[in-house]
Amino acid sequence: MDLNQIKQDVLKANKALPSHNLVTFTWGNVSGIDRENNWVVIKPSGVAYEDLTTEDLVVVNLDGEIIEGTLKPSSDTPTHLELYKNFPEIGGIVHTHSSWATSWAQAGKDLPNLGTTQSDYFYGSVPCTRPMTKEEIGGKYEKETGTVIVETFHNRGIEPNHVPGVLVYSHAPFNWGKTASDALHNAVVLEETAKMAVHSYQINPDIEPIAQALLDKHFLRKHGKDAYYGQG
Amino acid sequence: MDLNQIKQDVLKANKALPSHNLVTFTWGNVSGIDRENNWVVIKPSGVAYEDLTTEDLVVVNLDGEIIEGTLKPSSDTPTHLELYKNFPEIGGIVHTHSSWATSWAQAGKDLPNLGTTQSDYFYGSVPCTRPMTKEEIGGKYEKETGTVIVETFHNRGIEPNHVPGVLVYSHAPFNWGKTASDALHNAVVLEETAKMAVHSYQINPDIEPIAQALLDKHFLRKHGKDAYYGQG
Amino acid sequence: MDLNQIKQDVLKANKALPSHNLVTFTWGNVSGIDRENNWVVIKPSGVAYEDLTTEDLVVVNLDGEIIEGTLKPSSDTPTHLELYKNFPEIGGIVHTHSSWATSWAQAGKDLPNLGTTQSDYFYGSVPCTRPMTKEEIGGKYEKETGTVIVETFHNRGIEPNHVPGVLVYSHAPFNWGKTASDALHNAVVLEETAKMAVHSYQINPDIEPIAQALLDKHFLRKHGKDAYYGQG
Amino acid sequence: MDLNQIKQDVLKANKALPSHNLVTFTWGNVSGIDRENNWVVIKPSGVAYEDLTTEDLVVVNLDGEIIEGTLKPSSDTPTHLELYKNFPEIGGIVHTHSSWATSWAQAGKDLPNLGTTQSDYFYGSVPCTRPMTKEEIGGKYEKETGTVIVETFHNRGIEPNHVPGVLVYSHAPFNWGKTASDALHNAVVLEETAKMAVHSYQINPDIEPIAQALLDKHFLRKHGKDAYYGQG
Repeated sequence: MDLNQIKQDVLKANKALPSHNLVTFTWGNVSGIDRENNWVVIKPSGVAYEDLTTEDLVVVNLDGEIIEGTLKPSSDTPTHLELYKNFPEIGGIVHTHSSWATSWAQAGKDLPNLGTTQSDYFYGSVPCTRPMTKEEIGGKYEKETGTVIVETFHNRGIEPNHVPGVLVYSHAPFNWGKTASDALHNAVVLEETAKMAVHSYQINPDIEPIAQALLDKHFLRKHGKDAYYGQG
Repeated sequence: MDLNQIKQDVLKANKALPSHNLVTFTWGNVSGIDRENNWVVIKPSGVAYEDLTTEDLVVVNLDGEIIEGTLKPSSDTPTHLELYKNFPEIGGIVHTHSSWATSWAQAGKDLPNLGTTQSDYFYGSVPCTRPMTKEEIGGKYEKETGTVIVETFHNRGIEPNHVPGVLVYSHAPFNWGKTASDALHNAVVLEETAKMAVHSYQINPDIEPIAQALLDKHFLRKHGKDAYYGQG
Repeated sequence: MDLNQIKQDVLKANKALPSHNLVTFTWGNVSGIDRENNWVVIKPSGVAYEDLTTEDLVVVNLDGEIIEGTLKPSSDTPTHLELYKNFPEIGGIVHTHSSWATSWAQAGKDLPNLGTTQSDYFYGSVPCTRPMTKEEIGGKYEKETGTVIVETFHNRGIEPNHVPGVLVYSHAPFNWGKTASDALHNAVVLEETAKMAVHSYQINPDIEPIAQALLDKHFLRKHGKDAYYGQG
Repeated sequence: MDLNQIKQDVLKANKALPSHNLVTFTWGNVSGIDRENNWVVIKPSGVAYEDLTTEDLVVVNLDGEIIEGTLKPSSDTPTHLELYKNFPEIGGIVHTHSSWATSWAQAGKDLPNLGTTQSDYFYGSVPCTRPMTKEEIGGKYEKETGTVIVETFHNRGIEPNHVPGVLVYSHAPFNWGKTASDALHNAVVLEETAKMAVHSYQINPDIEPIAQALLDKHFLRKHGKDAYYGQG
């Protein structure tokens, strides 16, 4: 995708946040990256989704310097940039405070993978980061939010491509994907599986995560080199 | 119903999945069977419900060979075929990942019958299958999903006509009925009763399933040879 | 209200059932009574709410004989008649399988009065009936459903005017009021307070029902002879 | 804002109550104050939100005397006046029986602050008042409801500007803000965080409130003198 296509994709994904019930007010933002120039297209701060146009979108480089746009980029931009710098295979990022995923983040718990719905998109649990330190919070807080996400994936040996999302402790989820639309898709799946997991544990507190063979089957039939499964 | 009527019915039931809040994205599919020719009409893979037309629907025989249609049939087609082959009295099938029924499937528990709402359509609990084996998952997985459903009904002596639905362990529900519309109706009932059962147990963890006399009354006044009860 | 006004009111209340999210399919019906002639206006069986017209409504006398109308009256008509015969002060009845109230009915528990929201309309708990006997279920079941409701109010000394609703064990709620609209209003309140009570107990399993003085204040400022409180 | 602007703001905030799913029927009211004249603009009693016009709004002084308007002011007016008299920094008030916040009020528990979503608007827990006494309930009840709110903030040393809302024991929430719109915004946040907290505790009953450093960061980056954070 060229920069204009990325802008269209980022615009569309931002506008889809309220239709998928992922946001209250303007509590969410979507970005996409042009990997050729390392330019990031992101939602401006404080603009309502229904009013958003491609002209409102802000283009920044990986140092956060504005390349295009007259509005202030989302306050969460430094988190997005940190993820783009450290996860070279991702092309889009979504951050929301969606209700069920945020409930897991507030509980400080990984979201276990309990079934095929999650397995079609997430190759295992969705990790919750460790609490941030006083120094991280008091320093470049938004950038450090990205750093702690990256640390979580590195320390636990999780491939960002295999698990396209994270729960930030006491905060909320971030999702990513090949494009902004793909990241949005993963954010919707996370929210739905976060809800179902709460109810599954309520029905049976002793359930175990999905069997490895079934997880392999579902993730790999859609994402592996031998993928064959279409949707529906 | 002739093939054209079945196509209309399958189209309508597929389009009704989002209006009944049974699906996220395209996570659901409906089929119907023409028992005279043993031709199955099923949703194509990956097409959005709002875009679907009768021309998009795929017709396959019970061996899965395409009789009509240019699109790829739903990846879940082998499961549908297995059910049609083994449950000769059914005319339509619905598969979704609807939120509450899937929560029960992920919990690996039968959905007990707690009241008259479920009893009007399901003559007892909705069974959850056993976990599938590594061999079944590694083999013809989608077909084996059907096989384990059939096994559940045979081993437990449940009439598919009496209990028009099942929870596949770690996966999601399948429903069936006399037609595609009827199967859809049963899928809506399953989702609603799956939700209410979670809340009933939350209110009173010690409740017992509905009394046999009341179950008999409600199921048989609608489905028995002496049925007299209309809706509403 | 004359018969035509009652028909208008019954029509409107039936059509409002889906807008208030009280019904799935046609699982609910509303009636009203003309106390001068003892004629009951009730929804016909199986007609969708959006298609319903005043011509479709059925008028029956207290013996269930059809006075006006060509359609079959709701199968629940004998329950409505039993309530009209025994609760002379009521003018309208609503029966639904609304999700949260039905969850309490399936749990076989009274809905305790936990706050001012319920107290504005219900002067105490909403009772759950005893289980019906095999004889009642095997006999005139729909009529006996009314009988067990009446018994509950009589045996427990509850005024139907003070507590305009009931939970039928293993089944679902009935509500009533001065008119069909008023009964509908009470059904909406019951559903909302049934939901909030589940969550209040989840937050604090040890809560007690609302203090008597606060219950008196809220119910009586709206319903007593010294009522002064408007809505909002 | 002059009186006309306040009326516009109060009208808009009242009309927004149903769109934010904060009210059933007319169970909610919004007011705003013109601090120059100490005139309070408030919703009239019993008027549906969709029918409301600026002409319907009632203007009263701090003694509750009607300055403008032909309709009866909301029955909750004395509570609003008590808050305006004692919290001189607030400009708007919202009262609803929103489902999740009311569930906490009925449970008689403070809503703990579990994450950044709440911290962006509430500098700590949202307090629940003590139960009102028989004397308070039997006296000027609506005024005393305000008194017990004020007492809660004074006794516990909470700044109304730092925690723009309260749960009234066995009753429901009140929120406030710089304007009516701002109070509405805080009511939406309270409802959303009240819901998420229930689910977070369900996932992990042992969670602690958000760390002080993170609470400071989120509240102060939006509300302190060094505020820099925009929305989204």
